[in-house]
Amino acid sequence: MAQLAELLDAKLTGDGQCEITGLATLQNAKSGQLSFLSNPSYIGQLKTSQASAILIDEKFIDSCPSNKLVTPIPYVSFAKATALFDNSPMPPMGIHDSASVDPSVVLGKNVSIAANAVIAANVALGDDVVIGAGCYVGESASLGNACKLHSNVTLYHRVVLGKNVVIHSGSVIGADGFGFAFDGAKSVKIHQLGGVKIGDDVEIGAGSTIDRGALEDTEIGNGVKIDNQVQIGHNCKIGDHTIICGCAGIAGSVTIGKNCIMGGGSGVVGHITIADNVQVSAMSLVSQPIPESGMYSTGTIQAKTSLWKRNAIRFQQLDSFAKRLKKIENSTDKKQVN
Amino acid sequence: MAQLAELLDAKLTGDGQCEITGLATLQNAKSGQLSFLSNPSYIGQLKTSQASAILIDEKFIDSCPSNKLVTPIPYVSFAKATALFDNSPMPPMGIHDSASVDPSVVLGKNVSIAANAVIAANVALGDDVVIGAGCYVGESASLGNACKLHSNVTLYHRVVLGKNVVIHSGSVIGADGFGFAFDGAKSVKIHQLGGVKIGDDVEIGAGSTIDRGALEDTEIGNGVKIDNQVQIGHNCKIGDHTIICGCAGIAGSVTIGKNCIMGGGSGVVGHITIADNVQVSAMSLVSQPIPESGMYSTGTIQAKTSLWKRNAIRFQQLDSFAKRLKKIENSTDKKQVN
Amino acid sequence: MAQLAELLDAKLTGDGQCEITGLATLQNAKSGQLSFLSNPSYIGQLKTSQASAILIDEKFIDSCPSNKLVTPIPYVSFAKATALFDNSPMPPMGIHDSASVDPSVVLGKNVSIAANAVIAANVALGDDVVIGAGCYVGESASLGNACKLHSNVTLYHRVVLGKNVVIHSGSVIGADGFGFAFDGAKSVKIHQLGGVKIGDDVEIGAGSTIDRGALEDTEIGNGVKIDNQVQIGHNCKIGDHTIICGCAGIAGSVTIGKNCIMGGGSGVVGHITIADNVQVSAMSLVSQPIPESGMYSTGTIQAKTSLWKRNAIRFQQLDSFAKRLKKIENSTDKKQVN
Repeated sequence: MAQLAELLDAKLTGDGQCEITGLATLQNAKSGQLSFLSNPSYIGQLKTSQASAILIDEKFIDSCPSNKLVTPIPYVSFAKATALFDNSPMPPMGIHDSASVDPSVVLGKNVSIAANAVIAANVALGDDVVIGAGCYVGESASLGNACKLHSNVTLYHRVVLGKNVVIHSGSVIGADGFGFAFDGAKSVKIHQLGGVKIGDDVEIGAGSTIDRGALEDTEIGNGVKIDNQVQIGHNCKIGDHTIICGCAGIAGSVTIGKNCIMGGGSGVVGHITIADNVQVSAMSLVSQPIPESGMYSTGTIQAKTSLWKRNAIRFQQLDSFAKRLKKIENSTDKKQVN
Repeated sequence: MAQLAELLDAKLTGDGQCEITGLATLQNAKSGQLSFLSNPSYIGQLKTSQASAILIDEKFIDSCPSNKLVTPIPYVSFAKATALFDNSPMPPMGIHDSASVDPSVVLGKNVSIAANAVIAANVALGDDVVIGAGCYVGESASLGNACKLHSNVTLYHRVVLGKNVVIHSGSVIGADGFGFAFDGAKSVKIHQLGGVKIGDDVEIGAGSTIDRGALEDTEIGNGVKIDNQVQIGHNCKIGDHTIICGCAGIAGSVTIGKNCIMGGGSGVVGHITIADNVQVSAMSLVSQPIPESGMYSTGTIQAKTSLWKRNAIRFQQLDSFAKRLKKIENSTDKKQVN
Repeated sequence: MAQLAELLDAKLTGDGQCEITGLATLQNAKSGQLSFLSNPSYIGQLKTSQASAILIDEKFIDSCPSNKLVTPIPYVSFAKATALFDNSPMPPMGIHDSASVDPSVVLGKNVSIAANAVIAANVALGDDVVIGAGCYVGESASLGNACKLHSNVTLYHRVVLGKNVVIHSGSVIGADGFGFAFDGAKSVKIHQLGGVKIGDDVEIGAGSTIDRGALEDTEIGNGVKIDNQVQIGHNCKIGDHTIICGCAGIAGSVTIGKNCIMGGGSGVVGHITIADNVQVSAMSLVSQPIPESGMYSTGTIQAKTSLWKRNAIRFQQLDSFAKRLKKIENSTDKKQVN
């Protein structure tokens, strides 16, 4: 544990010889495991937890009878600990026989390309890049050092990834933006001439889609984290370190600031600009610009359907209520004047 | 038809020699086809239907002039009949030359692995397993007997499927859960050390994603049916026989009970527990625990946009309305007291 | 530029010798680029734009100091211009060695099949069909002339595409519709015996899913444009030239008319019929039939969460408000009568 304390830059209080073999929550930890206290509402579990050591903020150490690794942000230290105990398989070495790699591809050092992956002409892959089975990387795409595509990811032509970008299976980067001009009878396609540019340290979940720009690039900033089944339309600009939760849908030409959090299933209509440090709650729709940081919501609160229906029907009468209320107030005012 | 009656365990009333060649709705059935009456509101169609036989509940037989197959739940008998008339292609025999199967893979009897599928080290495939073209099955994954992956499915490492699990194309099971700890400047990845465990008789539609757990497994119970484009976050537990309709999004660490129905496009925020036998209506958001069975909803009812907008603007004044209404009531009460 | 005017069928006013090398918005255009004025609110940018020529409606030409290409619908002419400047890579010639094409497949002229694609038995591919890397085309599927599947698309058996259909990566056409009959203890699968039939000139984005019909075909009309991550359930009929924006979810057995626009993230519950020329706004839910053209909405308007919460709590009291308001009105009426 002394070694672990050093790796996590934490101050050890307790038995440095104790061996840590895994990680668990306070409630489920067994002997030999490391846990953490992040949310103070779990402070009561400190006494009963079987964890052999606990990552903890200095101010709570008196409540903790176990071995302690004291650290200013226990949740971040826990995150670092998960890297030490990571049990995911090593990527295969080199290029699999069944992969189809165009002779023009520029390969960095220590690149791994798994079975049945297809790398098109003029692609550039940086050092330590990992391409999973069945991936497709389109013409002239470029992946910075240490990028990792899990299996069955699709990158279209000219998509540019920075360093250390992780993309999970089923995601598609660089498909055509949704652009058509209606000529009175049919929709004429607007060919999408831009690309997609993704910064460093970005992670994109499974089944997400980011479209290429119409004329210029769609841009994802550094450190952006995108969950599963997120849709980002053409021409969007997503600011650094913004977090986009699962199933969110961002329409075309939207600009989102830095350090925002878009809740699960939230949506933004096209051509909207959102400031830095904005949070949008789950399944809320942004239909107007947000020039000011803060948290925003739409919708109603859950209720039993029978009760909900009675109120939802009344929603349709709200404008009438407003006018009738005003009328009553006016008549009362008059009486008071009289 | 006598044979069909036997296979469906139904009581035949009418011409047992009549040959049944296909299935259709009451309205569209032609001679030679079998239909069914499930919803009593279609009872009027019994007289005009061209169906050669009709699956029907005993209590409606007097309204039905055709040959009848009498059965307690006609819709279930119809479902069984669709299996008899299933016209989907047989999976190819054996392992295709272009498939990449690690030598360590343990194969049951009668396994079918289609072209360009990739099966990683230490995978175990039960008897009668079918792996579609272009699938990826990660290290140490395990598939029970009679599992079927349609084309282009991705299973990450250590995903465990029970028996008779069907997964449709494009779905991704076991990608990393969405977990990051913010250190004040950037998001530090929480490596996802858990797995995904799926029970028996589960069906998962196309383009759905189920993430692996952070520390423990994400768990899907027996008989659960999941539609297309459903997202299930890390650490979720979904109870037996629950049905999750298309585009629903379940955030991380959610527990859903047994026999629930999550409507299309519905959502659940993280760390919520939902009881057994709960139904959530389409596009409703569950943001608070549901300890009691029943049907729950959020949202408003559709209206022409011009009308909707007038009422939606008034929603922003609801708290003011409430206070003004109270004030009027108080003043009226006072007058009455006076 | 004179040549461009001819290709776009526009009337040239200005320097016909000027060479056009690319396209850009009014604001970002540089010398040598062609731009367009579609939305009159950008008319002020005409004077400052560096574009060498501008596609413009005749009525605005006096406001435009640059070279002009005069045309009745500038946005449509711009769309046509994007085709002239399309920079996407040419598909590879012929059939890649690693593709797996069943000997029974019928191939048109000039078909391109990329690496690791799999084409099953009895498929028919028209002239100029392009199949991307890693695609799967199921038994007896049929693709009309000039269809293009981008990489990693899945078509199930018996899916029929008209001419000139484009499908982006990750999309899945023809997976089983979501049909189960509950027998009191478990869900019995209704095998999906129908297919999917898609008309001419349809484009489908990335990560979208269209299920096969239960008994008959799911049908997508001519000229329909479908964005990313759209879900269309079994038995749906989508009318010609309808547009379905990203993340929309259409449940089973829905009929949508011609020339409709389904907004991003919108939803339709099952068994609903929607008329021609209907527009549904973003993230709105259609839960009742729409027999009349027009624009429809649900939901509330965004607000700061603190304010939203105060009003959302009051929503739960709306029925009570209505009754109390009525009571006050009745009592006031009585007084007036008195």
